[in-house]
Amino acid sequence: MKIFQQSLTFREKRRGFHLITGDILQAMPQISEISTGMCQVFIQHTSASLTINENADPTVRKDFEMYFNKTVKENDPDYEHDYEGSDDMPAHLKASLLGSSVMIPIRNGRLALGTWQGIYLCEHRDRGGARGVVVTVWGE
Amino acid sequence: MKIFQQSLTFREKRRGFHLITGDILQAMPQISEISTGMCQVFIQHTSASLTINENADPTVRKDFEMYFNKTVKENDPDYEHDYEGSDDMPAHLKASLLGSSVMIPIRNGRLALGTWQGIYLCEHRDRGGARGVVVTVWGE
Amino acid sequence: MKIFQQSLTFREKRRGFHLITGDILQAMPQISEISTGMCQVFIQHTSASLTINENADPTVRKDFEMYFNKTVKENDPDYEHDYEGSDDMPAHLKASLLGSSVMIPIRNGRLALGTWQGIYLCEHRDRGGARGVVVTVWGE
Repeated sequence: MKIFQQSLTFREKRRGFHLITGDILQAMPQISEISTGMCQVFIQHTSASLTINENADPTVRKDFEMYFNKTVKENDPDYEHDYEGSDDMPAHLKASLLGSSVMIPIRNGRLALGTWQGIYLCEHRDRGGARGVVVTVWGE
Repeated sequence: MKIFQQSLTFREKRRGFHLITGDILQAMPQISEISTGMCQVFIQHTSASLTINENADPTVRKDFEMYFNKTVKENDPDYEHDYEGSDDMPAHLKASLLGSSVMIPIRNGRLALGTWQGIYLCEHRDRGGARGVVVTVWGE
Repeated sequence: MKIFQQSLTFREKRRGFHLITGDILQAMPQISEISTGMCQVFIQHTSASLTINENADPTVRKDFEMYFNKTVKENDPDYEHDYEGSDDMPAHLKASLLGSSVMIPIRNGRLALGTWQGIYLCEHRDRGGARGVVVTVWGE
């Protein structure tokens, strides 16, 4: 069984949901060496997250931003953690609702994603800065 | 370390939450050959999802359907992605809230699930069609 | 490739969000033997969950409890599964929103967590009792 790991840094992205499948594939060409295995992508932050969703129509990603803003309100007077800006505590909540990692099986040297699946980097802050991601792949 | 992978297809299920622990065990008898390892189940779709929850009382699964319908509304006029039916964009959102994979440790040839834990296939569309799932198991 | 697994039991915690990164590290000293690998933490329950979030300011964890109580209401008359107490069905829903496992890459003998990331055990019941967790680590 082989294992490979690669860190990559995404330059600051605007608040919203961004497709990064291509960046992951580019950062980890060793996926092609694995016939049966697994790929994990992990984001090292608590106000950004990763998820898998529709890779074609950009309005899906706009609707994600709209929905999560409605569901996790800014300026809720009940927040105690409010000194880092009105987008901060909502960003922490969104990050845990969506999760800090995705796991995708590898089959015959390729990610076994469905036709419509892509990896999203979800930026929940207005000025989130650069984001560090760790990609780990194992299998044989 | 050994690794095994199996694809399986579930025939169309009605919208709602369905226990599939038995199907996973049946599709992957090699779990019994692993004394210490891991099992990942991945769904290759963006309008259906997987989660782990209560495996006994069917009303729990009915309440899941009720809760997620309340929380992720259909026909929100703010959706831009609305041409595939009123259940489509909510299905994408529910899929990311719940997630596209579950991971369960293997111990002594069995999934180390708690007494009350089962794997749910969560069908978020009215007519979702057949659903492809990939089961991957590794360990020694 | 090596693989290690360890079960641990947390004594009953009060309802809310609790940092357990230190407990996981203590239960699995073999992390230091792995230069490239992965750590999975799995909770064997359906009314408690695991997530990764901010490890410094305790008000973040208080705001998590506040937010999830607002979002997943107790005593919704639409719940059918209500005979185990008003906190029971909400606990199942919160558990699936947050998830039953976290996965963290290992690099150079350490969890590759970001500076502000910690592992939360999320206790969703008023009297959840002891909670069983399985930690699995693999790599080389």
